[in-house]
Amino acid sequence: MSEELSLWQDSPTRQAILDFVAAITAENSPDYRPPAERIATFDNDGTLWCEKPTYFQLLFAIERLKEMAAADAGLLEKPEYKAAVADDLDYFAGLYPGDVPALMQIFFNTHGGMTQDEFETLALAFMSETQHPRFGLPLKQLVYKPMVELLHYLEDNGFKVFIASAGGMSFVRTVSEEIYGLSRERVIGSNITFETRMTDDDLVLYRKPGLIEPFDDGPGKPVNIELHIGRKPILAGGNADGDIHMLRYSETSGPLSLQLVLNHDDPEREYAYEGSSAKKVFPLARERGWTVISMKNDWHEVF
Amino acid sequence: MSEELSLWQDSPTRQAILDFVAAITAENSPDYRPPAERIATFDNDGTLWCEKPTYFQLLFAIERLKEMAAADAGLLEKPEYKAAVADDLDYFAGLYPGDVPALMQIFFNTHGGMTQDEFETLALAFMSETQHPRFGLPLKQLVYKPMVELLHYLEDNGFKVFIASAGGMSFVRTVSEEIYGLSRERVIGSNITFETRMTDDDLVLYRKPGLIEPFDDGPGKPVNIELHIGRKPILAGGNADGDIHMLRYSETSGPLSLQLVLNHDDPEREYAYEGSSAKKVFPLARERGWTVISMKNDWHEVF
Repeated sequence: MSEELSLWQDSPTRQAILDFVAAITAENSPDYRPPAERIATFDNDGTLWCEKPTYFQLLFAIERLKEMAAADAGLLEKPEYKAAVADDLDYFAGLYPGDVPALMQIFFNTHGGMTQDEFETLALAFMSETQHPRFGLPLKQLVYKPMVELLHYLEDNGFKVFIASAGGMSFVRTVSEEIYGLSRERVIGSNITFETRMTDDDLVLYRKPGLIEPFDDGPGKPVNIELHIGRKPILAGGNADGDIHMLRYSETSGPLSLQLVLNHDDPEREYAYEGSSAKKVFPLARERGWTVISMKNDWHEVF
Repeated sequence: MSEELSLWQDSPTRQAILDFVAAITAENSPDYRPPAERIATFDNDGTLWCEKPTYFQLLFAIERLKEMAAADAGLLEKPEYKAAVADDLDYFAGLYPGDVPALMQIFFNTHGGMTQDEFETLALAFMSETQHPRFGLPLKQLVYKPMVELLHYLEDNGFKVFIASAGGMSFVRTVSEEIYGLSRERVIGSNITFETRMTDDDLVLYRKPGLIEPFDDGPGKPVNIELHIGRKPILAGGNADGDIHMLRYSETSGPLSLQLVLNHDDPEREYAYEGSSAKKVFPLARERGWTVISMKNDWHEVF
């Protein structure tokens, strides 16, 4: 076995990736694509980093609610602060899709009302210092090593790798260079809105309530990919129904493209779940010939 | 004189650029910045390419109005189609700022109602085939060579150069790789909105009426720079009041930054104008120590 993708089992999945990259990069290949067209886009939560016991950004929001309640006990009369202090993840899980406006308000309150610099300091500290409840590592270390190896392998082969996350763009960017080797502009995601506040002495970007449109999930992913990249991805990877539009979009990029869908089937080393957010993507993968990655069978290591 | 910036006169302006880049890149310099932080952002119309007799994208809109009127003579009852067929630039100039909604509607009608692929084909053909009325060259050749040399010089020194244009992001991207050597994701700008249209057989991005917020001018430029790059520019260049927020934003990037403002003072080789769109930027440049580029005195060549 070559050193390429050494964290991957010598499986058909690994071979499918190697074959695709060889076909795209060999100059005498009928499927050759110049570097400018070698765009790869990956979902983040559950595709590149762990999303259990819930997605890390919700853990950050809960942590912020706790801090805010500690500074102002009156807030504990509100259910979300009470739930945060009680570490009641079920309360927050129950808001989606039942009460999206309430969930959004939680994100606005915990992620907004501060400058961009202030937010980045908070988010970086959270990802660096918070221990994962099961694995006991800082959250930023809960990245799937074989996927990081894949990102680097693609970059080494002239690809530009981008993240297209439903999660917060600013949140992921605070660690993307460190954990993925991806510079900040390579991270696309959802985000709170910004306001430019300029005085004679200073100019700051202030984070204020409101979502940048479109939300970067489902049909919003191809739109944001176009806005941020301006090219169709020839390789796309995801793990949930919210990635279907992006995966389908990559199919339209030319005669040869690759779609990867990560299956969480490894309760020993990570988790086993499909759940409500991945009802359609696996049947669709079979139907359309997308490559399903089995965490259990395709990877030597996880974290 | 070294070969660097060979299209620039051996002037204080050129020296200011060379000194800045040396201070940022020399590892023993107190102002050294690692490559990840070497972000440069430039306005496009009137900073990198010519914006006279009016900005090229308005010429494109007028051309589209003519085509639409040729296909449907009934449209000639509307003033904008009549003005287009008569090449009445004054009519369109009069819409700003007098009737921005009418101007926006013209852009929606001429830039929307088609897929992204269809738009790119039209825009590229226009920029490649339309001759400039004064210079007799295809519009895409009306780029300022010393500025292109500057972009390349910055890239050679580890900078990532981005365009932050008030004009259409998709419009500029169709030629950015060819004329500037900047890949598409390096172009930030204003744009019409997109809709993902997915059927069982296909997925297309459809361009529809509506502006992506915020419009990429004035206070919108720092916001869009944050959304697309996630870092503050340490060098910014512009030529009009709409660039002031971006120039001010770059000042907040650290102890050493560079601001460039291009002065159109060369009626022989290009045009001499300040006009209504650059009333504040030159006084501000003097006040804040920004570097003013004289097209006439600082450049050996223009196009």
